[in-house]
Formats: sequence, structure tokens, C-alpha cells
Amino acid sequence: MREVFQQELTEVQERLVRIADLVAESIDKATTAFNSSDVTLAESVIADDHLIDELASSLDELAIDILARQQPVARDLRIVVSALRISASLERMGDLAEHIAQLARTRFPEKVVPKGLRPTFQELGRLDVEIARKLTRLLQSESTELAEEIRNDDDDVDELHLSVFDKVLGETWKGNAGDIVDATLASRYHERFADHAVSIAKKVQYLQTGDWVVAVGH
Amino acid sequence: MREVFQQELTEVQERLVRIADLVAESIDKATTAFNSSDVTLAESVIADDHLIDELASSLDELAIDILARQQPVARDLRIVVSALRISASLERMGDLAEHIAQLARTRFPEKVVPKGLRPTFQELGRLDVEIARKLTRLLQSESTELAEEIRNDDDDVDELHLSVFDKVLGETWKGNAGDIVDATLASRYHERFADHAVSIAKKVQYLQTGDWVVAVGH
Repeated sequence: MREVFQQELTEVQERLVRIADLVAESIDKATTAFNSSDVTLAESVIADDHLIDELASSLDELAIDILARQQPVARDLRIVVSALRISASLERMGDLAEHIAQLARTRFPEKVVPKGLRPTFQELGRLDVEIARKLTRLLQSESTELAEEIRNDDDDVDELHLSVFDKVLGETWKGNAGDIVDATLASRYHERFADHAVSIAKKVQYLQTGDWVVAVGH
Repeated sequence: MREVFQQELTEVQERLVRIADLVAESIDKATTAFNSSDVTLAESVIADDHLIDELASSLDELAIDILARQQPVARDLRIVVSALRISASLERMGDLAEHIAQLARTRFPEKVVPKGLRPTFQELGRLDVEIARKLTRLLQSESTELAEEIRNDDDDVDELHLSVFDKVLGETWKGNAGDIVDATLASRYHERFADHAVSIAKKVQYLQTGDWVVAVGH
């Protein structure tokens, strides 16, 4: 019985890693599609998002089932409770990757990224992919250093996000109204993606400390 | 023991209602501040958001504590699991109300809502407040009709959200780049606020049906 239980907890963690891996793949493709106006790649991100949704829902079901059957306590309970929150964030990160891909598809064959902002969005995309990859490793290792790195990367994303507004409001800006809408939305999606990764990193911290308020606090 | 447990479950539900009530108050003030450029009101929303955050964190702690001590099953377990998800959505709705208030404050003493969009944002604000009030009643009553109404109101919000883009991209639009950024972000915040309400309504549906995938499915 005890052995089955430990196997189930391991399965919860492995499934989280698997979903995080799909999210990393999705944001990689979405930001590539966005920056290179690759409509086929954008469509594959949009078509595959339901996989992340389904895996997240099914992980929730497993977690609820474990709570009902195994009545875990202490660290075991924290693993299950965190999984319920982490799956929601991963699912949302998948949605945000999909939104980025949708912007690329809607604008195609035109380029979605206005000229003056291409280096900024290249860097935002690179950081989001980096963060997603670190997240997968964090869920495997619970490494404090990785959690810290994710927080630092998120600070860089926030700075770039603000710089997008400086650019579109600046005197040298040459884009039209559609460019401003796209840049605003795209930048917001990139920023929220990174926020969710930080939120997941806090849940991993909770696994270690058991202190919900400190780990999750705002 | 059993009686204490039932009291705790009642407390979980009452605390959710209390937080939903604060969220409704917050979005009411935020949208009023936004539409009337009332910086004092905007500041009170920003100053009070931590109350929602704290109540949500403390409710999470209670829920985790109940899972550890009472090991609930069936509907009791669903109440606790849903509470963990609903509190996260309510906390986020509070953040979105705060973001709307921040836009009003940042632009003050100028008006944040560009001229051609005032009726649209009045209506978006009215709908978000209406949805938040219905949500409070839904958490008290678990009424199927209210859940349905929230979904319909959300459809109206989505339509208005899209109409904002039609306006700023239309030929009669007279706003500047800053107006477009503000309108895009504000509209997105209003839309996400309503999305979270729908997501909570789905969790209430799960309380009744016990089917996570159908109730939460995307």
C-alpha cells in the first residue's frame, strides 16, 4: 500500500515534468513562429495546446484521487496540493504560448513584429524559452539555484516588457495602430508567461519549507 | 469531531464569499475610478489589494490544514479542492482590478479612457461589476442559473473586448499611441477578470457533478 502511494507521488511529479516539457516546446515554437512569421509553426502550436490542457486536467484528477484514497500528510500532502496549483499555471502558460502563436497567424503574411521591436521580442522570446526549460529542470530537481535564476530572468522580462511601451510611445516610433495593439498584447503575453513560472517556483519552495504564506505570498 | 469538520467546511465557503465580496467592491471602485479619472478611488483599490491576497493565502492554509487533519472524501473533498482553485482565481481578479486602477492613476490628471471608447469601457466596467456580484451569490447558492448568467455576461465582455480593437484600428480613431496602449491593456484586464469568473463557475459545477474534466475542461 505504502509502496503504491510512493509510486503515485512519483507519477504526479513525473507528469508535471512532462507537461512543463510540452510547455517549453510550445513557447519555443510560438516565439519562433512569432519572430519569423512562420504560420505553419504557429498553427502547430495552436493545434497542440489541447494536449497540455488534457494532461493538466488528468493530472488534477490523479491528485484528487490520491487525496481521497491515500489521505496524505506533511510533505506528501504538499506535493499533491502544489501539483494542483502548478498544473493550473502550466495550463495557463500553454494558453499564453498559443496566444503568441495566434498573433503570428492573424497577421500572416505580414510580419507581426514591428521593425523597431524585433530585437526586443527576440530577447523576450529567448528568455521565456530559457525560463520554461529551467522550470522543467526545477520540477525535476527542486534546485534552489534554478528557482533563483527563474526569478532573475523574470526581472529581465519585466524590464523588456516596460521597454516595449517606451518604444511605441517614443518619438522615433514609426508603426501604425495595429502594430501598437500587437506589440502591447504580445509583450503582455510574454510577461505573464514568465510570471507563471515564478509562481510555480514559489510552489516548489513551499514543497521544501511547508510555509504556504511565505512561499506563495505576493 | 464530525461537527467541527462541518463547521470548518462552512467556514471555507463563507471565507470564499467574503473574498468574492471584496473583489466585487474592488472592481466596482476600480472601474469607477477608471471611467471617471478618480485618483483617490484608484489609490484606495491599490492600497487594499493586499487584503484580498492575505485572505486568499489564509484560506489556502485552512484548506490544506483540513486536508491534513480531516482527510475528507467525496463532496467534502471537492469543496476543499475547489476552494484552493477558487481562491487563486479570486486573488487574480483582485490583481486585475488593481491593474485597472493603476492605469487610471498613471494617467491622472489626464483621462485614461480615450473619447471614442468611453461608452465601451462604461459597459465593460458595468459587466465586470455585475459578474463579480453574481459570483458572490453563486458561491453562496451554487445556483445553476447564476453560473449560466455569468457565462453569458462573459460572452458580452468578449464581444466588447473585440470591439475595442475595431475602434482603435478604425478610420475614425483619433487617439495617440498612449491611448492605444492603455485601451488595449484595460480591455484585456476587463476580459481576463470575466474569464476568471467563468473559471470559478466551472469549479462550482464540479462541486455538484464531481466530474473535474467536464467541469474544468477547456
